[in-house]
Amino acid sequence: MIETIHVNLNNYSYNIYIGEYIFNNMFISSIFLKNKNNVLITNKKIEKKILKNKNQYFYKILNKIHYFSINDGENYKNLYEVEKIISFLLNNLYGRDLNLIALGGGVIGDITGFVASIFQRGVNFFQIPTTLLSQVDASIGGKAGVNHILGKNMIGSFWQPKGVFIDIKFLSTLPKKELLSGIAEIIKYAIVFDKIFFIWLENNLFKVLNLQKKELLYCIKKCCELKVKIIENDEKEIGNRVFLNLGHSFAHAIETFTGYGKWLHGNAVSVGIIMSSYLSFYLKYLKKSELLNIINIFNNIGLPIIGPSTMLPLDYLKLMMRDKKVINKNLRLVIPVSIGKVKLISSIKENILLDSITACQERRFFS
Amino acid sequence: MIETIHVNLNNYSYNIYIGEYIFNNMFISSIFLKNKNNVLITNKKIEKKILKNKNQYFYKILNKIHYFSINDGENYKNLYEVEKIISFLLNNLYGRDLNLIALGGGVIGDITGFVASIFQRGVNFFQIPTTLLSQVDASIGGKAGVNHILGKNMIGSFWQPKGVFIDIKFLSTLPKKELLSGIAEIIKYAIVFDKIFFIWLENNLFKVLNLQKKELLYCIKKCCELKVKIIENDEKEIGNRVFLNLGHSFAHAIETFTGYGKWLHGNAVSVGIIMSSYLSFYLKYLKKSELLNIINIFNNIGLPIIGPSTMLPLDYLKLMMRDKKVINKNLRLVIPVSIGKVKLISSIKENILLDSITACQERRFFS
Ligand SMILES: NC(=O)c1ccc[n+]([C@@H]2O[C@H](COP(=O)([O-])OP(=O)(O)OC[C@H]3O[C@@H](n4cnc5c(N)ncnc54)[C@H](O)[C@@H]3O)[C@@H](O)[C@H]2O)c1
Ligand SMILES: NC(=O)c1ccc[n+]([C@@H]2O[C@H](COP(=O)([O-])OP(=O)(O)OC[C@H]3O[C@@H](n4cnc5c(N)ncnc54)[C@H](O)[C@@H]3O)[C@@H](O)[C@H]2O)c1
Repeated sequence: MIETIHVNLNNYSYNIYIGEYIFNNMFISSIFLKNKNNVLITNKKIEKKILKNKNQYFYKILNKIHYFSINDGENYKNLYEVEKIISFLLNNLYGRDLNLIALGGGVIGDITGFVASIFQRGVNFFQIPTTLLSQVDASIGGKAGVNHILGKNMIGSFWQPKGVFIDIKFLSTLPKKELLSGIAEIIKYAIVFDKIFFIWLENNLFKVLNLQKKELLYCIKKCCELKVKIIENDEKEIGNRVFLNLGHSFAHAIETFTGYGKWLHGNAVSVGIIMSSYLSFYLKYLKKSELLNIINIFNNIGLPIIGPSTMLPLDYLKLMMRDKKVINKNLRLVIPVSIGKVKLISSIKENILLDSITACQERRFFS
Repeated sequence: MIETIHVNLNNYSYNIYIGEYIFNNMFISSIFLKNKNNVLITNKKIEKKILKNKNQYFYKILNKIHYFSINDGENYKNLYEVEKIISFLLNNLYGRDLNLIALGGGVIGDITGFVASIFQRGVNFFQIPTTLLSQVDASIGGKAGVNHILGKNMIGSFWQPKGVFIDIKFLSTLPKKELLSGIAEIIKYAIVFDKIFFIWLENNLFKVLNLQKKELLYCIKKCCELKVKIIENDEKEIGNRVFLNLGHSFAHAIETFTGYGKWLHGNAVSVGIIMSSYLSFYLKYLKKSELLNIINIFNNIGLPIIGPSTMLPLDYLKLMMRDKKVINKNLRLVIPVSIGKVKLISSIKENILLDSITACQERRFFS
C-alpha cells in the first residue's frame, strides 16, 4: 500500500508518497519513464549502490533516466557543484521544461532543489530521498540550498518539489551511522510537537533503527505529517516553522567548525538539542526529569550528547551569530519548555549561553 | 516633482519613483539613511563616479551607507562575484533582516537582486538604477540573475525589489555609448506595444539622447508604465511577458559568442531586433515599409544593425538553442508583425532562420 500525504500550498501543492516497492506502481513509474526532460541528479556512491545495482528492484526504472553524478558528501554541497550541474544541463541543451529529480540524501536533495530554483529562473523538480534523514525531514518543505565556507545553508531558496517519493527499500543499503543520524531528526519532531510520539519512540526506536517495516513506516509518516502541518501554515518560516530548527543553531556551528562532512548532520543535531534543552533547564523552563528523558533517548540509541572536544564555547557563540535566526545582531534560539512544546527566546545573555555550553561540554548537567 | 508608479503584485507590490533630485526628498532619503541593515552593492567605477564624488548632490546620502564594490563589467556578472558578495555579508554578520541596495546599471541590479534572492533564502532589496538601460528596463520587474559561460542569464530567479528609485541626475556621467545602449531597449518597447510611441521616438530620440529633461522623463516613465502593465499580469513570464524579449534570443547569442562585455547589451538588442524584424518580413508578416522604419530608427541614432563579422549564422543557431524560450528543443521567437504588435512563433525551420540571419549579415534586407 502507498500512503499519500497532500501538501497544500495553493499553486505549489504536491503529494508525498510513502511505502515499500512504490516504483512498481504504474502511476509513479510513468512519471519517471514517460518524460523526456527528466534529469536525475545523484552522487557517485548512490550511482553505484542504487542506479547501477541490478539487484535492486528500482534499478529497472531509475537506471533509464538520464543522470548526472556529483561527488559524495556534505563538503560538496556548495556553489561549485551547483555550477557543474548547470554546465551539464546547458551542455545537454536542457531548457525551462526540464524536470530535475533528486536521488539521494539531504545533500543531493538540497543542492538539486537549489539548482531547480535558479536554473533558467526555475524549473520543476522531484525528490526521491534515500536516507532516513531525508525521508523524514530534508525532502519535504522546499528548503533548498548550499553551504558557504562561513556558514551552513547560507545560500538558498524556498522551492517546492512537485512530488516526493519515499520508499523504505532504499534504506536497506544505508550504513547504520546514517540511520542513526536520521533518528536524531525523528526525536526532534517528538520533542517539538508531540509527547505521546516521544513516549512511543522511547519504546520503539530500536525497531525503527532495525528497519522493522511497520514501525519504520509509522514513524516516517508521522514525521512527514507533523512537518507538513507546519509548512502549510508557514511556508517561508516567518512564524512557527522556526520551531523545526530546534538544536540547529548549535548543530550548524559544529558542522561549520569541524568542516562540512566531519560530523553527520543528525549527530550535530543530537548535541544541539541537548544544548538547547540544557539551556532551557538552566533558564528554569524545562524540568530536570524531562531534561534527563531527552538526554537518555539520544544516549541510549547511540547518538552523541557531547560536541567535539576541540570546540570551545566561544567558537559556538561566534558561529551562531551567523545563524539565519539572528535579527539585528540578536541571537534567537528555539528551546524546549517541556517535551512536546518549544518556544523561541531572544536577547540571551552571552555569559548564560557560554555557561550552559560549558556545562554541557563538561557533562555537568545536574551539578 | 517625483512621479510614482505603483507595481501591483499582491504581497510583492512596490513603488517606482521617477524624477530629478529625488534623494532630496525626506521620505526617500530616510529609507537609505535610517536603516542600520542597509548594504549597498556597486562596482569600482560607480564607487568613484557617484559614491565618492563630492560634486554630486546624492553624495551626502549614498556615501553614508555601508557598501561593497565588485569589479565593473558584464563579465563579472557571474557566480564567483555572487560568492564574494555573500562572503562580505557573512563576514560582517548580516542576517535575514538585511536590505540590499543595488546602485548601478543592469549588471549590478541583476547580480544584487540575485544575491538578495538566495542570501539566507531571501532578503529585501532596493534598486537605484544609474544607466538609462536599467532605468527603463533592467531595474523593474524582478528578473535577477547571472551569466554562465555557456549562456547569458542562465542562472537566476524572480525576486521583486521593495522599491525602485530612478533619478535622471545619474545619467549626466554616463558615456554616450551607454546611453545609446539604453535607447535600444526604449525602441524595443515601442515596437512591441505602441506605434504612437514609435512615431514620438522617431521625432524625439535625439532629445532623449541629449538628456533633455522633459523628453527624457516622459520616455522613462512611458517605458516603466509599459513594462509594469505586462509584469502585473505575468510576473513569472508564463504568458505575454515573453514579448519583452523581442530581439533578445539573437542578442544573447551575440553577447555569449563575443564574450560578455565585448558587445553592449543594447547594441546586441538592436541587431537582434533587426534580425527578428527581418525574419518576420521574410515570413511575410511584417511589411517592407515597417521593416525599413525599424532599421532606420536604429541606424539613424547610431545603433548597430549588423552583428559581429566573425559570427556565422550557425553560431547564432547553436547558441540560440540554449535560450530560455526553447521548449522541447523547439526554439520559440518573438517577432514584430507590425510596429506596435508582436507574436511568438515556434517550430521555425532551421534553414529559414539561417537564410534570414545570412541576409541580415550581408545587409541584403530587400534583395
Ligand atoms: N532541506 C531541509 O529541510 C533539510 C532538513 C534537514 C537536513 N537537511 C540537510 O540534509 C543534509 C544531510 O542529509 P543526509 O543525512 O541524508 O546526508 P547525505 O545526503 O550526505 O547522505 C548520507 C550518506 O549516505 C549515502 N547514501 C544515501 N542514500 C544511500 C543509500 N540508500 N544507501 C547507501 N548510502 C546512501 C550518501 O551518499 C552519503 O554518503 C545536510 O546537508 C542538512 O543540512 C536539509
Ligand atoms: N533584469 C532585467 O529585466 C534586465 C533587462 C535588461 C537588461 N538586463 C541586463 O542588464 C545588463 C546591462 O545593463 P547596463 O546596460 O546598465 O550595463 P552595466 O550595468 O554594465 O552599465 C554600463 C556601464 O556604465 C557604468 N555606469 C553605470 N552607471 C553609471 C553612471 N551613472 N555614470 C557613469 N558610468 C556608469 C557601469 O559601471 C558600466 O561600466 C545586462 O547584463 C543585461 O542582461 C536585465
